[in-house]
Amino acid sequence: MFSRILIANRGEIAIRIIRAARELGVESVAIYSEADANSMHVKLADRAICVGPPAATESYLNIPRIIAAAEIANVDAIHPGYGFLAENSHFAEVCRSCNIEFIGPPVDAMETLGNKVKCKQLAVKNKVPTSPGSKGKIEDEEAALKVAREIGYPVMIKASAGGGGRGMRVANNDISLRAGLKAAQAEAQAAFGDGSVYVEKFIDRARHVEVQVLGDSHGNVVHLWERDCTMQRRKQKLIEEAPCPVLTRDAADKLCKSAARLVAAAGYYSAATVEFLMDSKNDMYLMEVNTRVQVEHPVTEMITGVDIVKEQIRIAAGEKLSFTQKDIKIKGHAIEARINAEDPDRNFAPCAGPIDELYLPGGLGVRVDTHVYAGYRVPPNYDSMIAKLIVHADDRNTAISRLSRSLAEFKVGPIATTVGLHSRLMKNGNFRKSDIDINFVERLLGL
Amino acid sequence: MFSRILIANRGEIAIRIIRAARELGVESVAIYSEADANSMHVKLADRAICVGPPAATESYLNIPRIIAAAEIANVDAIHPGYGFLAENSHFAEVCRSCNIEFIGPPVDAMETLGNKVKCKQLAVKNKVPTSPGSKGKIEDEEAALKVAREIGYPVMIKASAGGGGRGMRVANNDISLRAGLKAAQAEAQAAFGDGSVYVEKFIDRARHVEVQVLGDSHGNVVHLWERDCTMQRRKQKLIEEAPCPVLTRDAADKLCKSAARLVAAAGYYSAATVEFLMDSKNDMYLMEVNTRVQVEHPVTEMITGVDIVKEQIRIAAGEKLSFTQKDIKIKGHAIEARINAEDPDRNFAPCAGPIDELYLPGGLGVRVDTHVYAGYRVPPNYDSMIAKLIVHADDRNTAISRLSRSLAEFKVGPIATTVGLHSRLMKNGNFRKSDIDINFVERLLGL
Repeated sequence: MFSRILIANRGEIAIRIIRAARELGVESVAIYSEADANSMHVKLADRAICVGPPAATESYLNIPRIIAAAEIANVDAIHPGYGFLAENSHFAEVCRSCNIEFIGPPVDAMETLGNKVKCKQLAVKNKVPTSPGSKGKIEDEEAALKVAREIGYPVMIKASAGGGGRGMRVANNDISLRAGLKAAQAEAQAAFGDGSVYVEKFIDRARHVEVQVLGDSHGNVVHLWERDCTMQRRKQKLIEEAPCPVLTRDAADKLCKSAARLVAAAGYYSAATVEFLMDSKNDMYLMEVNTRVQVEHPVTEMITGVDIVKEQIRIAAGEKLSFTQKDIKIKGHAIEARINAEDPDRNFAPCAGPIDELYLPGGLGVRVDTHVYAGYRVPPNYDSMIAKLIVHADDRNTAISRLSRSLAEFKVGPIATTVGLHSRLMKNGNFRKSDIDINFVERLLGL
Repeated sequence: MFSRILIANRGEIAIRIIRAARELGVESVAIYSEADANSMHVKLADRAICVGPPAATESYLNIPRIIAAAEIANVDAIHPGYGFLAENSHFAEVCRSCNIEFIGPPVDAMETLGNKVKCKQLAVKNKVPTSPGSKGKIEDEEAALKVAREIGYPVMIKASAGGGGRGMRVANNDISLRAGLKAAQAEAQAAFGDGSVYVEKFIDRARHVEVQVLGDSHGNVVHLWERDCTMQRRKQKLIEEAPCPVLTRDAADKLCKSAARLVAAAGYYSAATVEFLMDSKNDMYLMEVNTRVQVEHPVTEMITGVDIVKEQIRIAAGEKLSFTQKDIKIKGHAIEARINAEDPDRNFAPCAGPIDELYLPGGLGVRVDTHVYAGYRVPPNYDSMIAKLIVHADDRNTAISRLSRSLAEFKVGPIATTVGLHSRLMKNGNFRKSDIDINFVERLLGL
C-alpha cells in the first residue's frame, strides 16, 4: 500500500479521498489555490501545499505545479478526484513518467473509453446497446446527411472527444443538420482541440441510467449495479438514485453485465461509469464512459457497502478486488441530492458568499459529504456544489421520507442554496412515481 | 397513526424523535426550559413550548407543566426519550389518564421490569441467567449475612428500585456487609423513596452486554441482538458496539432469546433493554431492564436497519411489528462514541460554554446524532453529552479505522470534549482486541 498520496482536487471530493486514505492508513497531501486557503480539505489533510492563484488553470489544472507539489511532499500516488484533471490522460502519463502512480485507469484504456467514437466501436463489437448512427466520425456534410436520412430525424451531433454537453447539437432536418454540424465542429475544436464529430439517433424523453464498474489490474471486472440520474437541470445532475426505480432487476442485470463487458474489453482498471440513455420503451443507448469516480458514487456505496474510493486506491496499489460479482448485493434504496449554492430568485444562478449559519442533517440512514462549515466563505471561482446529502433506507418511499425530513433540517445561511428546490421535488407526484425524463426539471421550472 | 406528538425531552434524543416523527408524517411539539431556548431541538420541531426555568424539576421533570403543554398543543401522544421521566410509571399513568398516549410500555410491565427484585424473580422463573443471591428483598441483617455466606464474598448490595449505581455497595466480608447494608438502605430510601435492598454475587472483571428488545401490543416480541457497552467511566458508558466482539453467535443467540423471553413474560411492549454482566468465563448475569429507548440504540439500528424510535411510535399507535425474528439479520459492525463536553485537564469534569468552531465528521458509514451547532452555548444544567458519533462498516477493524478517522476530523472548540480520549482509546491494544472490563478506563486513566 502507498505511504502517502496527493489529492489533485478540492472541496468535498478532496475530503472524500482524505477519508478513504486515512482509513487505509495512508497519509494525504492536499493542494489548494489561494482562494481555498480556508477550505476544510486543507485543514483535514496531513499536509497542504498552495499551488497557485484562484484561476483553475493556474492551480488545480496546472500540471507542472501539481507535479512539483507531489515531488516536494514525496508522495507515492496522486488521486485526481472528478473534474479538473481526472480524465486527462496526459496528466496520467506525466504522473507515471515521474514515478508517481496515477490513481485511475491505464492511459490506453482511458483514451479508448474516453473517446466517444472509439468507445462506441468497442461497444458495438461487445454487444453493448448503442444508438443507430455513423460508424465513426463524420468525414463531411454529405456523409452526415446520408446517416441522418437513414436513421431518421431528429438526430444528435456529438463531439468525438466531448463531454458535459459541449459540442452537441440536435438536428430535426437537413437544414438544421448542416448548421449544427458546423457549430458543433467549431465548438469541439475550441473545447477539446479535436473538431471531429459523429451523428446518432436523438433519444427523446430519455432517462439517464448509468452503471458503476470497478476493475483491478489483474483482469477482474465487477459492476456495482446501476444509478438513475434522470433528474437534471441544464444537463447537470440534481438528484441521483440507486437502484433505478423503473428497471426490472432482469433488465438491470443485462445492462450492468454489458457495461462490465465494455470496461473489460478495453483492458481497463480502476472505477468507471458507463452512461446510457433509456427511451420510453426502456431500450438502452450508450452515451459515454466516464473514466473516474463520479459525484454520485455515494448512492452506490450506500446500497452495496463497497467503499469505491478505497477500492480505487487499493487497485492503484496493485491489489486484487476483494469481492466477486456474486458478493455484490443490493440492499435497500439510496438517493443523493446535490446541494448547490444557487439563487432561486435569480434563476438558480451560482452564487458565492459566506456561510454563517449551518446545521447539517444527521441520524439513521443520512450521510453528508461536504467541505463547508460555519465561518466558511464559498469562493466564486469553482463549482457551486456545497454538499451532497445522501440517504439510505429499506425502500424508495422511506428514502424519500428520509430525504424530505433531512432537507427540512438542513439549515444554511445567508447564502442561497437549492435546499428548497429539492424539498419541492420530494413532494412532486411525478418524482414520487419516477415518471420523469431528463428535461423534467426544465419543464417544471418553466425554463 | 398519531397526528402530533410532544417530546418530553431535550438535546440529541429530542431531535432523534423529531426525525422519526417527521419520517412517519407526524408533527412534533418540542418543550424546552429557559436554558434551552437556542437549542436545535426547539428550531427543528414543528412547534416548541417553554415549560419553565432551567432546573429540570421545574421543566423537563415537571409533570403538570408538561401535561399542560401537551394539552395546549393538542397532541395525541408523548415520547419521553431517555432519562428525565422516561422510566417514571406515574408519568405514563398521568399521560394515559389525560387521554394522551405514552410512547412506552404498559404501566404494570414497566413496574415489574423496572423493579429489580420483581424483575429478577420473573427472570428466574423464565430461565434467564441471574446472579446467585437473595430470593427477594432482604428482611434484616441476619438474612443478608446468611445469603452472603452461602454465595461467598464479595457480594453486591443493590436497591430494589435502583438504577445508575445509586444504592449499590460491594461487601467483601461480614463487617463491610453490615456497614454497606445500612448505607445502601439509607441511600435507596433517599433516592427512590424505597429503602428495600437485595444481595447478590459480585461479578469481578465483568463486561457489560445488553440485549435490545421490541414488542408490540399484539403479543409479538423480537430481539434486535446484543450490544457491548463494557467501555465505561464512572459507570457511564463511553463506547458501545454491536454485535459484542467476544461472544460466539450461538452464545449471543441463547442470551438474546432469554432476554426476549423475559420481556414477553412481563406482558411488555415498546422498546426495552435487558442488561447483563458477563464474567471472564462468558457466563451471564442479569443486571437490570431499562424500559425505554437507550442512548446507544443507534449501533443496533446500524447493524439491523431497524429504526427503533419509529417502531416505538408505531407500537404506541397500536401497529403490529412489521418484521419477525427471522427477518432480523446482523450486517457488519457498529461502534458509537459518546462525545461529552468534559475537560481532560480537570479529570474529565463536565464543562459548559460556547461552541464557536464546529466541523462534524461525515462520509460513508458515519452517523452523527447531535443538537449542537456553531454559535450554540452548552448550558451547565444538564447532561454533558454533545454528540453521538456512530460508525458502521463490514467488520470491527474497519469500523475502528472509520471511527479513528472520524474522530480525527471532528473539530469542536473552544469547549473541551472527550474527542481526544476516544482517539486514544481507538489506538489502545486492549480495546482493539476487546480485552477489557467495565473498570478498564479507570485503570487506564489512573482514576
